[in-house]
Amino acid sequence: MLHVTVLGRPAADNALLVSAESGQGRTRLLLDCGAGTAESLPLATVQEVDHLLLSHLHMDHISGFDAFFRVNFDRQTRENHIWGPPGTARILHHRFQGFWWNHAPDLRGVWHVHDVGPGEIQTFLFRAEEAFAVMHSAGQRAQDGPLLSTPHLSVSAVTLAHHGASLGYRVQEPERVNIDPAALRALGLPGGPWLSALKSGQPELLDTPAGPRDAEQLRRTLLRREPGQSVAYLTDFLLDDAAHTRLTSWLAGVEILYAEAQYLPEDADLAARHHHTTADRVARLAADSGVGALRLLHLSRRYAPERWPEFLTVAQEAFAATAFPDDWTLSG
Amino acid sequence: MLHVTVLGRPAADNALLVSAESGQGRTRLLLDCGAGTAESLPLATVQEVDHLLLSHLHMDHISGFDAFFRVNFDRQTRENHIWGPPGTARILHHRFQGFWWNHAPDLRGVWHVHDVGPGEIQTFLFRAEEAFAVMHSAGQRAQDGPLLSTPHLSVSAVTLAHHGASLGYRVQEPERVNIDPAALRALGLPGGPWLSALKSGQPELLDTPAGPRDAEQLRRTLLRREPGQSVAYLTDFLLDDAAHTRLTSWLAGVEILYAEAQYLPEDADLAARHHHTTADRVARLAADSGVGALRLLHLSRRYAPERWPEFLTVAQEAFAATAFPDDWTLSG
Repeated sequence: MLHVTVLGRPAADNALLVSAESGQGRTRLLLDCGAGTAESLPLATVQEVDHLLLSHLHMDHISGFDAFFRVNFDRQTRENHIWGPPGTARILHHRFQGFWWNHAPDLRGVWHVHDVGPGEIQTFLFRAEEAFAVMHSAGQRAQDGPLLSTPHLSVSAVTLAHHGASLGYRVQEPERVNIDPAALRALGLPGGPWLSALKSGQPELLDTPAGPRDAEQLRRTLLRREPGQSVAYLTDFLLDDAAHTRLTSWLAGVEILYAEAQYLPEDADLAARHHHTTADRVARLAADSGVGALRLLHLSRRYAPERWPEFLTVAQEAFAATAFPDDWTLSG
Repeated sequence: MLHVTVLGRPAADNALLVSAESGQGRTRLLLDCGAGTAESLPLATVQEVDHLLLSHLHMDHISGFDAFFRVNFDRQTRENHIWGPPGTARILHHRFQGFWWNHAPDLRGVWHVHDVGPGEIQTFLFRAEEAFAVMHSAGQRAQDGPLLSTPHLSVSAVTLAHHGASLGYRVQEPERVNIDPAALRALGLPGGPWLSALKSGQPELLDTPAGPRDAEQLRRTLLRREPGQSVAYLTDFLLDDAAHTRLTSWLAGVEILYAEAQYLPEDADLAARHHHTTADRVARLAADSGVGALRLLHLSRRYAPERWPEFLTVAQEAFAATAFPDDWTLSG
């Protein structure tokens, strides 16, 4: 179960906190880190963010970084990972060094920063002990699948145009495997720990309450597989026809798309010039992609709060299942 | 008239906003820039900060910098100045570069950063147009008087020990020159624009309603001079006997001292180890310096809010005119 919280208010900086958990633990992601986003979270939640994923490093997406970093700069209880478009490691290197580190020799925090290009991911490593002075090259790999996978989710990225590169992210739960209760009844077998063994896919012969049985055959009979939940986050990008086509297939199967809607249709020329979307265009993308629902974020400050409902109206004309984030009040 | 606002809450980051105005305008200073300090000010106030003066660059004194800089990075309506101990320009250079500046060629903001050493001030200049990539050396001068003077105030600095250098600041209004109304009545002369000419100190012969008179003689008779208001800000420093002696004379004439009180007397060893003060020691400094009043800031997070009143109690034993900032509520 993916749990998504939109951080920040309308026409202010926005970010997404995405959490997925199982009995075995939890993965937390923070997507972007503008002013007032990480600051709005309980300290304990910020301490548990496993990956910070940046769309790009314009001020309104990174100005809350100190609030995130101050809590975690020497974190050794989990790995520290930051992802973003090419150039992210260079800019983060400056941010890491934006403090007086006279106590650096006592620190042990290690940070992995990943520059995600369209074809390749380059990773750099920074050590608090070195006062973050050295940008260690830590390898590269092809960008041809998920950026990261945990037991609870995987994340993939798409490169968008924003006078340079911006990254869109898709978070996907693993496939869900469940026992079909009707099929179990039909077999006349009681439940028990053997069902967990069946789901885990290990043994060829499985000890069931009715004795050893062929595991593969039982799996075919009893297990129902369904895709995990999936959400996507697209912000600060030029949504022209080419991007529309490309993103339509990239978004296939997404349940909720969280997307910027900087402009109203009357300002489509501004949107194109500044490499942003309009509410109606992003709604058409949602409709053509077959996503389950659309949440509009990141409205431009140029519109007074009285006009915010217009974003919904024009978007809902193209895609009825459009809303603002649940906890936004539209009173400004 | 100096107007001082303490920003931030007890046991959180603190900063001071100092404003001084006359009919001819206003000077605004921000002393330190921890998290939640600049953010708590109206945008228009942040836009009017003429000088940012940093005690040092530990996280709790600089983590609100993005909120300040985001409003002002391309400011051309006034000069942009930042002051701090040696190393400030190097660290600020990183902070300036902590964003994606793809639009840099359109920018015109210029930033002056001053490294204030015990004997010398080194100034560096940074240009938004260059994406802040270059640290231009912009000269040096002796540190033997005020760092800066405007028509409304001047600022001087003192170097403190904090496992390195921390700066204390003193803000001083210019001497006030007023007409003595009794002396004016005794001369039998009516008021008028000639009194402004008298105060400005220009002509040798002054046109008065009673004809030309010797200006110098009139000035001696009519003008009363009194020192302007003065406040000081001391934070994050080792207050040992040597510092006590040195600061006692440096603080002479200060009306209100805003000072850190990290620890209670029971933790004097921690205070010494971490180069911080205790509430009682800083109150003794206030008493021995003859300042008018003391405001305690920057309490350590190690004490629960129920214990905050103890800071006042131990400080008031040494110096009765001690208080917390006016707008602090002690409910946590």
